[in-house]
Order: sequence, then C-alpha cells, then structure tokens
Amino acid sequence: MSKKPLILVINDDGITAPGIRTLIKVMNSIGDVVVVAPDGPQSGMGHAITVNSTLFIEKITVDDGPQQEYSCSGTPADCVKLAIREILDRKPDICVSGINHGSNASINVIYSGTMSAALEAGIEGIPAIGFSLCNYNWNANFEACKAAVKTITEQVLKNGLNEGVVLNVNIPNLEEKDLKGIKVCRQARANWEEEFDKRQTPFGKDYYWLTGKFVNLDKGEDTDQWALDHGYVSVVPVQFDLTAHSSIQQLNSWELNGK
Amino acid sequence: MSKKPLILVINDDGITAPGIRTLIKVMNSIGDVVVVAPDGPQSGMGHAITVNSTLFIEKITVDDGPQQEYSCSGTPADCVKLAIREILDRKPDICVSGINHGSNASINVIYSGTMSAALEAGIEGIPAIGFSLCNYNWNANFEACKAAVKTITEQVLKNGLNEGVVLNVNIPNLEEKDLKGIKVCRQARANWEEEFDKRQTPFGKDYYWLTGKFVNLDKGEDTDQWALDHGYVSVVPVQFDLTAHSSIQQLNSWELNGK
Repeated sequence: MSKKPLILVINDDGITAPGIRTLIKVMNSIGDVVVVAPDGPQSGMGHAITVNSTLFIEKITVDDGPQQEYSCSGTPADCVKLAIREILDRKPDICVSGINHGSNASINVIYSGTMSAALEAGIEGIPAIGFSLCNYNWNANFEACKAAVKTITEQVLKNGLNEGVVLNVNIPNLEEKDLKGIKVCRQARANWEEEFDKRQTPFGKDYYWLTGKFVNLDKGEDTDQWALDHGYVSVVPVQFDLTAHSSIQQLNSWELNGK
Repeated sequence: MSKKPLILVINDDGITAPGIRTLIKVMNSIGDVVVVAPDGPQSGMGHAITVNSTLFIEKITVDDGPQQEYSCSGTPADCVKLAIREILDRKPDICVSGINHGSNASINVIYSGTMSAALEAGIEGIPAIGFSLCNYNWNANFEACKAAVKTITEQVLKNGLNEGVVLNVNIPNLEEKDLKGIKVCRQARANWEEEFDKRQTPFGKDYYWLTGKFVNLDKGEDTDQWALDHGYVSVVPVQFDLTAHSSIQQLNSWELNGK
C-alpha cells in the first residue's frame, strides 16, 4: 500500500468547476486523491442531506490526472457519507472541500455547502478543510490559491486538528504576489441585508429573486473579514458543537419548571 | 396597534404539518401570529437558501384561527427572510420554528431545517426558538408538547436571549403526565452511523438510499440526549459564531507563513 496520504476531495459547485479542478491538481502533488463531488452546482444547500430521494454515483474521468473520480447526484454532505461508506477502502487522512467560487467567510459559513462537506468529514473524525476564493466568477483565477492551499493542507496533515474542529479557509481575490500571508482568525459578526426583487410571471403571478448585500458589523482586527480585506488568507477553526456555553447559567436562572 | 407580541411561526415540514398547526394554536394564546412556512416538506435541507431560483408566496387559509398565513415555495431560511423583508410591517418580537416531526437534539442540529429557520431569525436579531418532538410520525401526539412550548416561549419573551444565541428545544415522545420537567443542556457529542441501502433501477443502474442509526458517544449527564432519554424537555442555547476559540492558539503555533 502507498505511504502517501489518502485525500478525499469534495466541493459544492459540481465536479467540473474550475475551483475543484485546481484543488485536485494541488492534492495530486501531496497524496493519493479520490474525488467524490456533486454532478452539478449545489451552492447555498447548507448542510442538506438527501433523506427522501435516491442517490446515484458514477465513476467518471474528467481529465488525465492520476486521481479517481466519482460524480454523485446528492449534496456535498451526501458525497462525504457515500465516499466513506461505499467508495473508499479506508478512512481518508484528510478531506478537502472546494475551492469554492465565492467567499465563505464570516456568516457565510452557515449557508455553505463547501463547509458542510468539511463539517461532515469532521463529524466522522477526519481532519478537514474548506477552501474558498473570494470571487464568484466561474472563470476566476485560482492559480494564486495554490501555494496557500498546499501549505495549509500540509500543516494539517503534519499537526492534526483538535477533535470537533475543521478549518474554514478563505483566499482574497488577488494575484499571488499581492497576498500578504496566512492569518488565523475568528468568524466576523456580519449579516446579509437582503432585498427581494419582486417580479411578475408572464401569467400575472408575483415572484421574488433573493438579492442582498453583505454587511460586516464587526470592527475587530482579528476577524476573517478583516484579514481578507487586508490581503491575507484567513483560517478560522470551526466547531460543530453549537452550544453557547456562556448562556447556560443565564437560562438556569429562568422559571422553566414552575419555580 | 396591539400590545400583544408579534410572533413569526415557521417550520420545515410544510405549512399543513400537524406540528406547526399545534405550534400556531399555542402561539395564538400568547400573541398576534403570522405564519410563513414552506408549501411542502423541507426536512434535511439544513441551512439552504434559494439563490438560483424564483420564490413564490401565497396568502392562504388553513383553518379558522386568527393567525395570518403565507405558504412559500422556498426553504425555511427563505421563509424567514421573506417574512421580515416582504410580509411583516415590523420586526417580530419572537420567531418560533416547528414543532418538528423528529428529534433535532445533539448533532441533528447541524442538518435541521427547523433550527436553520431559528438561526436565520437569530442572525436578524430576533429572539428565536426551534421546537422538535422526538417522534418522526406525521400523526405524532403533539398535545403533550403544549405546556412546555408555552412556558419556554413566555420565558424568552420575558427574559430575552443573549446576542448571537437561539434555543434548540427537544421534547421526548411521552404523555404529558410522564414529562419530568425542562432541563437546560449542552449538545451531546454523537453521530449517525450511516448505512447505504444499495439497489438497482429497473434499468440495471445502481442507486442508494441513505439509512443509519444515531449513536450517542457522550456519557455526560448534562447533555440534551441524556435529558431526553430520562424524560426531560431539553433546552440547548445554540450559537452561530462557529469559531472554535480554543483552537486559535494551537493554529498560531503552526508554520503557516514560511516561518
């Protein structure tokens, strides 16, 4: 058996997206790569899983790289589950997801299919990283991401991650020479100010498109959004124990049991 | 204007599900109720949002209660966004989501459309609660939930919640007389041991159904799963800042910038 690490590659933009093709190329230089990715775009799927429908997997060849590839009809989280239970012979040494076309920094982590794949792998006890480039364009330039993606992946393989923690890595949309470095950060407090674009169907029925703008409410200089705005690659350790431990005492003072 | 609280009611099982009909009845006894819920089941949608498709809203009447109701073609998170931006005249005093048909305790919070609606409201600064009954049956008995749902909602209206925190409430599948009380908890460490049921289409192609069993890996007596197993309603404060603050120092010791 090869002594190279076994690397599971996933994304949410679909198996043919330029972002995952770049990620596969970088991972081929590190280990043995198996790709299990959605057969089409799944952005904004959050942590969806397919419970009421069937799942199809197809072994495919997209380019001439050494990786093995499977396209899947399900969500990113489904892909992780199927990879582990049905495709891989052994537990992968690492799972990398992305490179997403668009930011998953700050509150976007909540909506992210890219990060949900990483979280799903983390729940299975696999060190995992989600990578995103802050450019929504299909034809974004992913070349500048390669060095940071490789460095961070190698550091995770070398050092491991704490139990219950995965990494959310975002890369600013810059030329490689303009990247300032890699910064460990916390998630910025931010939200989307949505606006709905209200229209009418040709048959007179109202409908809506979701639009909106991202608003950073956080002035801290230790946040992922600050790092990205200042030319750094941001690395946020993300946990899936969502308990707000600091609120437990407050809630215990409430009259919940007729006291 | 009425001095009663304005209550936004959402769910992920669809607007006609018995769980939301029970929740509406309880909320009608507390305040002015506006329902904005999916037109069909959305379970397992996680925190999905509809970014690449249109959204339809329809004002409907389901029963003879005083509530206003809107059915929506989108996900639970879409419903919250549409309610706030397009339907309600003012910010609701509270948002309640559910009552979900099935547990959202422990790791299920990650996959939960019910909780994603509550989180979305929380991101908007609205106190929010997700309620779930530990019975997946459409015809589950929701009567026993009513007292706990009312108590917890009234306590949130009275005391408020810390910024960035929403409540994940799960109710064991018991008769009301057998409920032991309400317990504030942390999220249990658990996962799903998935198995895929592999079949063939009539045309000879393999496909899979996702199945699996829930495994509680946490022996603590302060967890939601422990509370539910011992007859208590569990209340977990949940946060949407996913930063694993305790890992930041570890990551800062890594060689991320060629040092």
